[in-house]
Formats: sequence, C-alpha cells, structure tokens
Amino acid sequence: MEYKHKVQYYETDKMQVVHHSNFIRWMEEARVDFLERIGAPFEKLEEMGLICPVIEVGCKYIGMVRFGETITVNTQLEEFSGVKMLVSYTMTHENGEVCCEATSRHCFLRDGRVINLKKKEPDIYAKFEPYIIK
Amino acid sequence: MEYKHKVQYYETDKMQVVHHSNFIRWMEEARVDFLERIGAPFEKLEEMGLICPVIEVGCKYIGMVRFGETITVNTQLEEFSGVKMLVSYTMTHENGEVCCEATSRHCFLRDGRVINLKKKEPDIYAKFEPYIIK
Amino acid sequence: MEYKHKVQYYETDKMQVVHHSNFIRWMEEARVDFLERIGAPFEKLEEMGLICPVIEVGCKYIGMVRFGETITVNTQLEEFSGVKMLVSYTMTHENGEVCCEATSRHCFLRDGRVINLKKKEPDIYAKFEPYIIK
Amino acid sequence: MEYKHKVQYYETDKMQVVHHSNFIRWMEEARVDFLERIGAPFEKLEEMGLICPVIEVGCKYIGMVRFGETITVNTQLEEFSGVKMLVSYTMTHENGEVCCEATSRHCFLRDGRVINLKKKEPDIYAKFEPYIIK
Repeated sequence: MEYKHKVQYYETDKMQVVHHSNFIRWMEEARVDFLERIGAPFEKLEEMGLICPVIEVGCKYIGMVRFGETITVNTQLEEFSGVKMLVSYTMTHENGEVCCEATSRHCFLRDGRVINLKKKEPDIYAKFEPYIIK
Repeated sequence: MEYKHKVQYYETDKMQVVHHSNFIRWMEEARVDFLERIGAPFEKLEEMGLICPVIEVGCKYIGMVRFGETITVNTQLEEFSGVKMLVSYTMTHENGEVCCEATSRHCFLRDGRVINLKKKEPDIYAKFEPYIIK
Repeated sequence: MEYKHKVQYYETDKMQVVHHSNFIRWMEEARVDFLERIGAPFEKLEEMGLICPVIEVGCKYIGMVRFGETITVNTQLEEFSGVKMLVSYTMTHENGEVCCEATSRHCFLRDGRVINLKKKEPDIYAKFEPYIIK
Repeated sequence: MEYKHKVQYYETDKMQVVHHSNFIRWMEEARVDFLERIGAPFEKLEEMGLICPVIEVGCKYIGMVRFGETITVNTQLEEFSGVKMLVSYTMTHENGEVCCEATSRHCFLRDGRVINLKKKEPDIYAKFEPYIIK
C-alpha cells in the first residue's frame, strides 16, 4: 500500500539531506495509514484498549533524500501470526529509485500484557489477514 | 536559574544552524529543570493530577546557533498569580552573547479545568513564590 | 492560503495531545507551501543564494490538538516592505474551531547579510506583492 | 564508553513513554560524544571535508522508557576496516536493566565519494584503532 510524504525543511540536517531519524517517523506515518486503510485504525485499536508498540526497527539508507522531494513509502505486512507482526517498507524517490528499505516488528498489548490478536480479537485480526504475505 | 544544553547534530537543518523549533524545546528543558530545582518537579505535579500546558510562546532569534555549542538558558519566573504563569528565558553562547530571548505562558489544569494553584495547592504555590520577580 | 496537516503519532506527548513545539513546525510547512504557490519556492530562493531565516515567532495555543486530526493552517502575508516580512497563521480543527493563532517574522539573507528584496530582487518581490495585506 | 541522556518531555508520546524514533537520536548523541572523546570529533572531520553518514540502523526496544529517567548509553566500536564502521549501543535504565540494544553502520565520504580512512587519513584512523573490538 502506498503512502506519500513530502519532505519538510525541519527534517533536513547540516549534511543538507534528511536526517536519518526521520525515516523511522515516516515508517510510522505509512503504518498508521496502512492500518487505517485496512479497517483497523489506531483510534479503533485504542478504543478497544489495544496499543501496538514497536519492538524492533531496521533501516537501510540507500539514497540521500532532499528537502522538497515527495517520497513514496510502500508498506507490506510481511508476517503476522496474531502475536508478532513484521512490516516492511520500501521508500522511493519520485523517479522510482529506492532510497530506503526498512522493517519494523510489533506486538499488541492490552493492560500492559501481550495478547494474541487472532484469539482475543478475531474480528480485528480478520482485517489484517488478507494482507499477510507469508 | 541556569540550564545547559549541548547542541545535537539532529537539531541542525540545511541552513547549517539549529532549526528554530528546537529553541522551543530547550525552553521546555530549562523549565522542567527549573521546576525540579525549586521543588515542584513535573512528576510531583502529575502525581497530584496537575498538568501545566503551554498557552503561549514568544521567541526572538538573535544569533544563529551551531552544532556542538553548549547553550546556557537562564530561566526566570516573571509573573505568577496562582492562575497564569509567565516564564522568561535568555539563551547565551559560550562567550556570553545572547542568541535568543523568549517567554512562555502557562496555566495549571486538573481534570481538564484551570485551577488557582495559590488557593487549591498552597504548599506547591509556596515553592514558586520566592522566585517570582514581579 | 490554506494548507492541511494530518497530525502524526510522533507529534503527540504524554499529555495525550500534540506537543506545542510541533505547531512551530506546521507554521514552516504552511509557509513553505505558501511560497511555492505564490511562485517563490524555497528551492528557487536558495538557487539565487537567498535564505529566509525566522527572526521571531509568537504562538497562542487555544485548543488542544489530538492524534489523527487534520488541521487547516490559513497563512497570510501581513506585512512585507522588502526587508522584514510578517506572516500570520490561523489553525483550525475540522469543525472550524480555531486551535492556534501564530505569527512569524523573517528577513532575507544573501552571503550572510540582510538584503532588501524589493530593491535587489524585484522580480521575486513582485511574487509576494499581491498577497501583502497591509 | 558511557554517555548519559536525560529524557525530555517532548520525547514522550501518547503511549506515555518515549517515542521509539528518539532512541535513534540518542544513538547519534552517544556516537558524537564517543568520537569527541577518542579525539576524532565531528567538527574536526568536517574541517577535513569528511562526513560520516549512517547507512544502516537496527534497534531492539526491550523496555519502555519514561519522562525524567536518565538513560546510560554504552557505545562500542564493533568493527572498522577503514571503510565500513559498525557501532553498537546498549542502553540501560538507572537500575542497570537494559532498555534498548542497537547498532549503526557508517562510511566516510569526501566530495560525495566513499573513502578508505585507513589509507587516506591514517592519523584519524589511528584515533579509532585502539577502540575496535573485532
């Protein structure tokens, strides 16, 4: 699923390119958008008492990104058993060249404890299922 | 009261200097430090159900600040009636030259409503009183 | 001129609302968009050796803003003599209620020195002129 | 080498803990401090026309970090051949419990091209050498 991010001035650093920490934020932007579009928006999860923390990120910076560019983030749900979720992100410049490849791992918590979404909230899990690649 | 902030690389932008939004964050750093040192730390306020939102900021950027500098923020409690609080900040380079002058206004909320700290929490208000300039 | 910003999760803080420093960043987003739409984009200014630093900001926080909201920033060019530029911003929730009123002051620098854009770059100044309110 | 970071209010998010993107920034803070202490500060590298971009990060979030905590970042130079550099970070709470384990990969660029620091700048490389673990 594709998400677009326009690079802001405050995201640049003195190397004249986007500071690497912002790609981690764009992953979140794209993931939030993904969840919204599959019918499991953050707001709904939070109403159900669920939070979805990040437990791991990995990010390869392939090309420098500059102020004013619009970056496309392609988000995919690589794995999701109900407990651990692996999401991948491929970011491209406007010309289609890849500038970043990344992954994030997540779990779902309720009242501070990890839950199995497939068992405890099958209706929500069903929203994810059609998008799981593996 | 003096607070020191070492400028980080991620705080710079493509003009090769600190992005102006970060000074607003340093004001918060200095204010949190101030509250801690006068005996009214944020953690204590939050335990009492109090939050202290920012209702206004003003910031004059006088000199550019660069990566690696250590900035001194001098924080003063200009006015505090118990309801509205005015805090001022003077930021200086290591050579003593002023790089920024700023103010922030605050109130105190409990259960989403503005409270008069002087009346409702006189013990906490007493921590602020010796530092009020006007 | 209207600019839309969708509130991101990373913009919230532990008060459960948007951290006040982010409004300063949205002012920049809206200003960059404004300059682009009047035909004086940042990239063009930078090609001409011009930078447009912020010399002052003022921001009144009127209503709390939450994750997932889309905020409209209405940007206006209040004053611009060629040397100093005053920009105002009114931010509204989706229901039209104002959540923030702000201003920023700017100058234009070339080779580290303030220039009079009206005299030195009249073609660029002409792009701003129709939008000046006062 | 140990670096201390005091958690700021603006680093928290609406989950009431530090937003995960900030750990990436703390890695940079600790790395900048490390370079300074081994005698190869960023400012010196930049004077020599060198930049040291991040080409990959990996970060495991083990424990939630809260406002007001002071986090210790233990930085180690895992590998450095002169071309690619691998740095590891272990972050601990005040009680010694690990909250984050991370790595970053870097190269050195001059005039936009990767250089072999060992060959091209042996005096600078010599500053790193005693700290290389593998």
